[in-house]
Amino acid sequence: MRLLDFLVLLLGWTIMSTATAAPFAIIIHGGAGTITRDKLTENKAREIRQTLARAVNAGYQVLEQGGRAEDAVTAAIVVMEDSPLFNAGKGAVFTADGRHELDASLMRGQDLQAGAVAAVRHTRNPILAAQAVMEHSPHVMLAGDGADQFAREQGLEQVENSWFDTPYRKAQWQKARQTASQSLSEELLDDAGLHKDDKFGTVGAVALDQHGHLAAGTSTGGMTNKHYGRVGDSPIIGAGTYADDRSCAVSATGHGEFFIRYTVAHDICARVRYRKESLEQAAEQVIMQALKAVHGEGGIIALDKQGKLVAVFNTAGMYRGWRTSQQAAAVTGIYEAGDER
Amino acid sequence: MRLLDFLVLLLGWTIMSTATAAPFAIIIHGGAGTITRDKLTENKAREIRQTLARAVNAGYQVLEQGGRAEDAVTAAIVVMEDSPLFNAGKGAVFTADGRHELDASLMRGQDLQAGAVAAVRHTRNPILAAQAVMEHSPHVMLAGDGADQFAREQGLEQVENSWFDTPYRKAQWQKARQTASQSLSEELLDDAGLHKDDKFGTVGAVALDQHGHLAAGTSTGGMTNKHYGRVGDSPIIGAGTYADDRSCAVSATGHGEFFIRYTVAHDICARVRYRKESLEQAAEQVIMQALKAVHGEGGIIALDKQGKLVAVFNTAGMYRGWRTSQQAAAVTGIYEAGDER
Repeated sequence: MRLLDFLVLLLGWTIMSTATAAPFAIIIHGGAGTITRDKLTENKAREIRQTLARAVNAGYQVLEQGGRAEDAVTAAIVVMEDSPLFNAGKGAVFTADGRHELDASLMRGQDLQAGAVAAVRHTRNPILAAQAVMEHSPHVMLAGDGADQFAREQGLEQVENSWFDTPYRKAQWQKARQTASQSLSEELLDDAGLHKDDKFGTVGAVALDQHGHLAAGTSTGGMTNKHYGRVGDSPIIGAGTYADDRSCAVSATGHGEFFIRYTVAHDICARVRYRKESLEQAAEQVIMQALKAVHGEGGIIALDKQGKLVAVFNTAGMYRGWRTSQQAAAVTGIYEAGDER
Repeated sequence: MRLLDFLVLLLGWTIMSTATAAPFAIIIHGGAGTITRDKLTENKAREIRQTLARAVNAGYQVLEQGGRAEDAVTAAIVVMEDSPLFNAGKGAVFTADGRHELDASLMRGQDLQAGAVAAVRHTRNPILAAQAVMEHSPHVMLAGDGADQFAREQGLEQVENSWFDTPYRKAQWQKARQTASQSLSEELLDDAGLHKDDKFGTVGAVALDQHGHLAAGTSTGGMTNKHYGRVGDSPIIGAGTYADDRSCAVSATGHGEFFIRYTVAHDICARVRYRKESLEQAAEQVIMQALKAVHGEGGIIALDKQGKLVAVFNTAGMYRGWRTSQQAAAVTGIYEAGDER
């Protein structure tokens, strides 16, 4: 074969493979915290990895079939909400009055449309309520009874609040209450009452679809024994969730108050867009520098339009998993960076 | 006098006047909307200007005495919350079920501490509840009954929900309900049911104190006839309120859903910090370009550490006022830019 023929062939193959294979990808998290090897049995770790892989693949399947990024995000999050392993949906932590109040948000990068719900008590999958708010209401954020009412009117499955109960979370709550009754202030409770790994467990997903659009979503049961109607970063667009096709899409997990004050998800996108930092640099600057300096614990997952994905956390571990159109299977990680397989 | 003597004298005067007069400033808004001259009588316009000036001066006095930026912000906002002229505190709009649900947030630029309350029903001054959350709780955002409970425990004045009633807002609500019952959807209500100027009236303040610190705060009664527990941008840190000594401080007012999706307050600060835009450029880019392009109506007030202040709005008017340490008195504006006096 002459060199020219070879080059023409190569060019044709390159164009074809680019045209037929727009990159797509999904990355998820199931919470960051003091997740070390002594905290999990081999069996539990295996169960977590399997569920993370199942969530990744549920989203991946949507993308593979040419579906929208936001539908991949909700497909992945529904798997984690329905699993008792994470602090979202079934398995959510208990509030101070022994109930569950769930928060979720969803955003798409194409047109910056977004939806969020805070303190829902009866909607089985809060992430689907956030999607309904985004797609079927003129609003972005609904809270409390009104959010459940809207979800019900949209035909989303409603459950008794006790449906979210799990024995593990109930025991955790009872322990927190005992400690609280001995504590003088909520600050003391936070520092002494709860194992740090009990405070986290939020789930999230970020996807890039074949049409080149980004989306991000986050869902949580909040903080164990929370009272005063505390709202964390998960339902806050800009803090727990942000997606903008011009920069990136981000879902966060961690000590919510810091993530709100530092507008973490939007700040990472702003650094990429305005300061031309790489996604990796931006995530490092915010999570490993700014937040770490003030002991704001947690992490993020993010994706840009090139399908570049990052998972950055300043805690011992973060449940995570991802799959791109270049990969034959999902990889998952639990402990320190490099643990993915 | 010899030239050298004169120069030494001039230098001494410059140093002295710089040392004794750190710049300080406050700027406030009382909502943006279709505020045109045919909508307000001369008397009503005078009353609004007088109240704006009173709010500016309440904050200015705190700054003049060496007080903190956040205390100047709350002093100014309390004046507007207590006035029936604005949609915040007394004079708040009615929800779909004929009550009042109030939102507020406060942030300081020195350490990015922030506090917010959503859907309080009994706390007379929601901005003071936001301040109490910032200063006396480990949380950033409290919502619903829990937020009122926290405010009550902090000793803040509680009132019957009907205390916020005013005849004007009641009539406005009744008109909105009639239109809503004839409408097929909430979108139609928004477009046809409410005069556009009925939708706005949020208040806010931004201050720079003599210690060189910035703060911003926002307070609102939300949207007339709102239901489903809708939350707007006012209690959302990053959307309605942001303050960062490294860039600027911002309070927003307008169609809240857009301000959340565009993370308006944080985006302006991010442009100043990362893209090195001037405060004026950043505000113009966000309000007159990005938001205007998608018909996101509203405006912002902002201040940077040099005491440079801006008021930018893409609506016909915005209630506004300001005073810097260079001014002998407050100026106020109602209609188009240039109307200040």
